[in-house]
Amino acid sequence: MEEVVIVGGGLVGSLLSLFLAARGYAVRVFERNPDPRTAGPSSGRSINLTLSHRGFAALSRAGVIDAVRAIAMPAYGRVIHGEDGGLAYQPYGIHREALFSITRSDLNRVLLDIAAQTPGIEIRFRQKCVGLDGSAPAVILEDLDSGQTSRERAGMIFGADGAFSAVRLQLQKTDRFDYSQEYIDQGYKELSVPPPAVQAWGLDPEALHIWPRGRYMLIGFANFDGSFTLALHLPYEGAPSFAAVRDESDLLRFFAHSFPDALPHIPNLVGDFFGRPVSSMLTVRCFPWVRGRVALLGDAAHAIVPSYGQGANAGFEDCAVLDGCLERHGGDWDAALADFERRRKPNADAIADLSLRHFREIRDEVREPRFLLRKAVERRLDELYPGRFTPLYSLVSFTGMSYVEALERAREQEVVVDRLLAVSDLEERLADANLGAALLQQVVGAAPGGRAGS
Amino acid sequence: MEEVVIVGGGLVGSLLSLFLAARGYAVRVFERNPDPRTAGPSSGRSINLTLSHRGFAALSRAGVIDAVRAIAMPAYGRVIHGEDGGLAYQPYGIHREALFSITRSDLNRVLLDIAAQTPGIEIRFRQKCVGLDGSAPAVILEDLDSGQTSRERAGMIFGADGAFSAVRLQLQKTDRFDYSQEYIDQGYKELSVPPPAVQAWGLDPEALHIWPRGRYMLIGFANFDGSFTLALHLPYEGAPSFAAVRDESDLLRFFAHSFPDALPHIPNLVGDFFGRPVSSMLTVRCFPWVRGRVALLGDAAHAIVPSYGQGANAGFEDCAVLDGCLERHGGDWDAALADFERRRKPNADAIADLSLRHFREIRDEVREPRFLLRKAVERRLDELYPGRFTPLYSLVSFTGMSYVEALERAREQEVVVDRLLAVSDLEERLADANLGAALLQQVVGAAPGGRAGS
Repeated sequence: MEEVVIVGGGLVGSLLSLFLAARGYAVRVFERNPDPRTAGPSSGRSINLTLSHRGFAALSRAGVIDAVRAIAMPAYGRVIHGEDGGLAYQPYGIHREALFSITRSDLNRVLLDIAAQTPGIEIRFRQKCVGLDGSAPAVILEDLDSGQTSRERAGMIFGADGAFSAVRLQLQKTDRFDYSQEYIDQGYKELSVPPPAVQAWGLDPEALHIWPRGRYMLIGFANFDGSFTLALHLPYEGAPSFAAVRDESDLLRFFAHSFPDALPHIPNLVGDFFGRPVSSMLTVRCFPWVRGRVALLGDAAHAIVPSYGQGANAGFEDCAVLDGCLERHGGDWDAALADFERRRKPNADAIADLSLRHFREIRDEVREPRFLLRKAVERRLDELYPGRFTPLYSLVSFTGMSYVEALERAREQEVVVDRLLAVSDLEERLADANLGAALLQQVVGAAPGGRAGS
Repeated sequence: MEEVVIVGGGLVGSLLSLFLAARGYAVRVFERNPDPRTAGPSSGRSINLTLSHRGFAALSRAGVIDAVRAIAMPAYGRVIHGEDGGLAYQPYGIHREALFSITRSDLNRVLLDIAAQTPGIEIRFRQKCVGLDGSAPAVILEDLDSGQTSRERAGMIFGADGAFSAVRLQLQKTDRFDYSQEYIDQGYKELSVPPPAVQAWGLDPEALHIWPRGRYMLIGFANFDGSFTLALHLPYEGAPSFAAVRDESDLLRFFAHSFPDALPHIPNLVGDFFGRPVSSMLTVRCFPWVRGRVALLGDAAHAIVPSYGQGANAGFEDCAVLDGCLERHGGDWDAALADFERRRKPNADAIADLSLRHFREIRDEVREPRFLLRKAVERRLDELYPGRFTPLYSLVSFTGMSYVEALERAREQEVVVDRLLAVSDLEERLADANLGAALLQQVVGAAPGGRAGS
């Protein structure tokens, strides 16, 4: 039985192990951290994430969707909390599409539980990758308990060890490996709202909550245990910023000014803020992903900023696409890996760009009347031309269309929306349903080929 | 006396040690390679380089210009070797401006000799940086002979350890360090022409020689010992490419077709080609360069492709600019380093872009009639408006104007040249000196403010 080593037992590494074990490989997974199923609660870092169509499609292909779905919280739309305390609801789609909120640690525990019970998968923790021999191939691991190093050979080695991948760091030292890591000038910090406080507050648990404030924002994720996690996104420098909030009174003044509705409902605000680290956000791009019998996937190959909620989804999709490539090429690693890289690299670049764009959009534009009107027009077109006119956000979150294709199609659709937005008194005219439909028909009918999108 | 550690005893590290010792610091230089003054000849890798105004200005500021000038070969222009065997000479400027060709190892030896004799400088070889403690600050070094590691503390640590900097690799793992390395799809290999072959060939030693062939080229540098070094630039893949030249007959056929005039004069062509490595070319960008009391400079901060001949010049200029910052801020490291980073980072980005652009220019355009006409127009303007209209190449190579300013000024000048190139029958009209002068006066006079450039 051919042996495969996976460096990283996080979300992508554990899901990958399931796909490969199902194909008959003997899989050894080496994870640097302690086993999250037996270790204490994590240190207030990382993090809620959202699963959407792609993530679930991959989980389904691996046969583990039910276990995950059971502990994920659906959000059917965004609740925008205005500065005046007013609320506005934006549904994600017209067919009750939902994102599913889940903590990274809960998701990881579920996948590790299943992997640990799967024949052919061995998982070892506290194993740090400190070297790579690409020609063998073999990884050099340090056991963080004993301090001893070992050399693990295999027919194939995957680096699924995240944004700060040790496997990628080794590849980076090899000739002609292109690499970039780029941080954005904001970070985030997590604040907890325990179940009683959530109830007293009356936050809708079936929505994502956003407090957009221009250069900064608060995002609220519902958790399965009835609590909420609030992610405070702030610039590192300037006003306001993490640097500018130096003490308790700075913090309370800042919240009283910017998030007065949230302030009374975060019981441990001061402790959370000053006790927890700021998480930074970066985009990682590299090429090649495959060098001989060493390959990268997930965040190790393409870390993205979290704003689009696609990090875990893209990583899971990597696993499913690789599985498809192995199927197509009958276990021929060279052919399968080349196919995988060719298919996924452009899509990883596309979702990296989209995520940076979306970050600016939800931070800067989501409260602009112009932005809201655009979203309203997109929803209206979606209603009138079902399946033919789908907003980009929906293509990314609620279909399995490749990211590149979604982006191309969105560009075509934007032309139509731009044309509509140029119509004077658009808002009033759309308010009259018949008139609005006629107008849309007229403008969309004038699009190339008389079609909206393709 | 405050202690400074410099990681890297190459060109930039050794020049930096001279500047710092002159300011009274106790400098320790740690270099991974053996001492090039006692080690055998290097392994056919790296390389001829050209020094121009900036490099010499920095060497002069450090008081070591004469020792370098004595072993450098001036080149006053390019000789373009056409496919038909014809030669065309392009002078670098109208005032006998020259580039100076020198081998990296000769230059390094001279600087190390001077540094080793300078009080306050200690240089140790075979010391590999394997770790960094930014807070101390201290570097962890492995002695490559004994295998033992040591920890060297200092008031200030510089990483001057080149494009593959170990210090930078340590900084890369710290939070919010932006980094990119990007290779171009070509490499180069060095071929030697010994003095007797040079004489038989009759190559002008006071010029750079270029055989531009579209996607590939040969560049010839004169050496101080009467030999020439030819750098064969080729794509890695495709036709022709390094991959496509598999054996002796491929190689001879390729040279007979592409460089028939050179073929008879490279006595060890086959041995050089198959015995020497292909050097790859990359651009490295990162930020910040300064983190506390650890700073990067030279290629460690901003490696560039070699086409503009500015790598060593930019690195030397870093040293001179840093020295100026230390002077201005009276030895206040924090202020001096912040000033250095603010001044140099935009210039490093500019010369990186310029070098990539120039690479495409000399490879793809240097034989185009349009390109030659543009150069002729630029030279003519330079003659008519001395000091006011200077070609970009001259601003970069023969002045100390900052790279950013040179680029801005070149953009203004390009507007004028473009306007001239749009004149019909330009070539014929320029050939008539009086008519040409009148035409230029007219077009340049019509430029904004009636001035050519600024």
